[in-house]
Amino acid sequence: MSSSDPIFLPKGFKFSALTAGIKASGKPDLALISAEPVATAAAMFTKNLVVAAPVQVGRAALEASRSQVRAVVVNSGNANCATGVAGLRACKSVCAETAKLLETKPSQVFPSSTGIIGVPLPTAKITSHLRSLIAGAEASVDHLRAFADAILTTDKRPKIASVPLQAGKGAITGIAKGSGMIHPQLATMLVYLLTDVSATPGELGSALRWACNDSFNVISVDGDTSTNDSVLLLASGSSGIPLRKIRNEFANALSSICRSLAEQIVADGEGVQRIIRLKIEQARSRKEALQVARTIAHSLLVKTAWAGADPNWGRILAAIGRSGVPLNPARVSISIGSQLVCRGAVACDFDAPLAHRDLSQPECSVTVRLGRGKARLEFITTDLTQEYVRINAEYST
Amino acid sequence: MSSSDPIFLPKGFKFSALTAGIKASGKPDLALISAEPVATAAAMFTKNLVVAAPVQVGRAALEASRSQVRAVVVNSGNANCATGVAGLRACKSVCAETAKLLETKPSQVFPSSTGIIGVPLPTAKITSHLRSLIAGAEASVDHLRAFADAILTTDKRPKIASVPLQAGKGAITGIAKGSGMIHPQLATMLVYLLTDVSATPGELGSALRWACNDSFNVISVDGDTSTNDSVLLLASGSSGIPLRKIRNEFANALSSICRSLAEQIVADGEGVQRIIRLKIEQARSRKEALQVARTIAHSLLVKTAWAGADPNWGRILAAIGRSGVPLNPARVSISIGSQLVCRGAVACDFDAPLAHRDLSQPECSVTVRLGRGKARLEFITTDLTQEYVRINAEYST
Repeated sequence: MSSSDPIFLPKGFKFSALTAGIKASGKPDLALISAEPVATAAAMFTKNLVVAAPVQVGRAALEASRSQVRAVVVNSGNANCATGVAGLRACKSVCAETAKLLETKPSQVFPSSTGIIGVPLPTAKITSHLRSLIAGAEASVDHLRAFADAILTTDKRPKIASVPLQAGKGAITGIAKGSGMIHPQLATMLVYLLTDVSATPGELGSALRWACNDSFNVISVDGDTSTNDSVLLLASGSSGIPLRKIRNEFANALSSICRSLAEQIVADGEGVQRIIRLKIEQARSRKEALQVARTIAHSLLVKTAWAGADPNWGRILAAIGRSGVPLNPARVSISIGSQLVCRGAVACDFDAPLAHRDLSQPECSVTVRLGRGKARLEFITTDLTQEYVRINAEYST
Repeated sequence: MSSSDPIFLPKGFKFSALTAGIKASGKPDLALISAEPVATAAAMFTKNLVVAAPVQVGRAALEASRSQVRAVVVNSGNANCATGVAGLRACKSVCAETAKLLETKPSQVFPSSTGIIGVPLPTAKITSHLRSLIAGAEASVDHLRAFADAILTTDKRPKIASVPLQAGKGAITGIAKGSGMIHPQLATMLVYLLTDVSATPGELGSALRWACNDSFNVISVDGDTSTNDSVLLLASGSSGIPLRKIRNEFANALSSICRSLAEQIVADGEGVQRIIRLKIEQARSRKEALQVARTIAHSLLVKTAWAGADPNWGRILAAIGRSGVPLNPARVSISIGSQLVCRGAVACDFDAPLAHRDLSQPECSVTVRLGRGKARLEFITTDLTQEYVRINAEYST
């Protein structure tokens, strides 16, 4: 699935985008999803304790509205984070102004911001454009694409994934931005998942948790977590299909959309040369598989070896050994591509030039078997290049 | 304190080094410390579950000998790690051969290896040189320096620190190798601390734990842990001074030596451009201060910002927020050099060019106040440069 695949427009949503002048580049930076008459919502937010104003306001709004959302307003170019009480006030005034124009309650407006940290939100630039933003909203694929473009910051490409439901009677479409926390002061992960099934907030919440666990929670470029990360799932009910009637189809469709968006985000990371599919097998639980995967995926020594396409399994083994999982090294094996390179924590006789060639591809799998149980996990991560350091070391203040 | 400062030779130890042909470079690669007649020991080892043969053998030897050490044999150029049962056998045969020549038990010989992982130890090269290694041992500063040189791998400089005790009647001298896990397949941290006080293993053990907590446990270049890391403290008793009579003086001297060696190791990291003294203050406990320090020190985004001397406090704040410590962001403040840059998780009005100049120095302090308690900690870490990635991405197989 990629952003050039066909887009199935979920009924009950309109989209709009324009340039409000928040970004210095003059690119579109204000975007709207309008749910008519209203959508049921579920959301997941960053686990970082330092959270931006829109995350605080959005979370409170969903509680106050009992998960009913009339509109989503997103600005790019400014994250409204580390802006204190003034930031909260700015965010609330954008919601209040939008609600007034839509004749609804402020708690039915869900806000998102992405961009630079620590700079006051230019509220007037946003509020002065809300009327034309709302007036321009339409239910078309072009308008959806304009929305997907306007929420980008350092992303090189928009990220869209779409799946029909019940042979086209319904649909789920996801729109995301983020380039893997490469530029965290600019690159929050924002994900909007839209469907026209009808569902309760509880039904949406469990589907969303399940889908995120298998997608956004198993990707990492550099291990940092943004202060603004948000995933919002909205169900308009306009197709007339109740989620509970197509529970499996819906869960699978939502998962495949989240997985596709997660991979698009990782692949878009600046300085990313290749994607590594890190498969952890024979773990005692999913939790410990994740712990091993994260320790490997965040090891500078492992990531730099991958940048050089170096089949250096010693670094992977050392990372596994310090992961905190009480494993027996004598039962651990590691494969690179199709070859076993280390078994029982001892070197295997393998074809090193072939392993080097496998690791030189745009995608390579690395499989770790822990010899402890039956849980498994596929974690998507990347190499760490000089280009990554160059981009992130540039003096930005 | 630096390795060019005067060296106080602790009585009761002889040193020796030679070239056994393990390193391809032809540099010295076999070294000995001989304790005559015998020294009392305490040791700390890597917490990695994947441990090299010498760590397994050395740990068992100290138990069997009840912490009595007659000799330390170190080879560089080969880590004897991920070498399985054959590696254990190789290590034991080196100890047995040394013990035979010294007419002692194999359990009184403490082995160390550092170098490449996954390659069989060239045992014959070592054992065939043991007789001349032992014959060459002398109690001189030159021989101590030769030992310090022979244990190096990718290190650019030898690492020595020395402090007199009781106005020169006794001494502690430390010798280390390691360049901050820059090349973990070559760069284990090995530390030998030698003193001529008399002490029980228990007294040495508590002094060593205390000193390590304040030195080797609060440094990090890249967060990886070697499979061979070992710290060994030997007390010959030859000065006639009992440790229990000078407990405070000894503890302070040992701490300052460990601290100096730790800083020498960090400063020697390849690709390291500057040292960051990360001061965590107002934590509720030392443990949570360490947790915050490690999260900041291991954040790629923070480390790359430091490489660019970029006073990007937003990245530091985001790392603090995801550290797992249940802190209140509104009470957190951050200083770079002498300037407060963020208070209550909100930007301060600070002189950015001055902060950039402070961060451009070879050393800069970054202070984080958590507003939770009175515990504090100074963590020594580094920036992350393109040079680091270049070195570690080179195809080494």
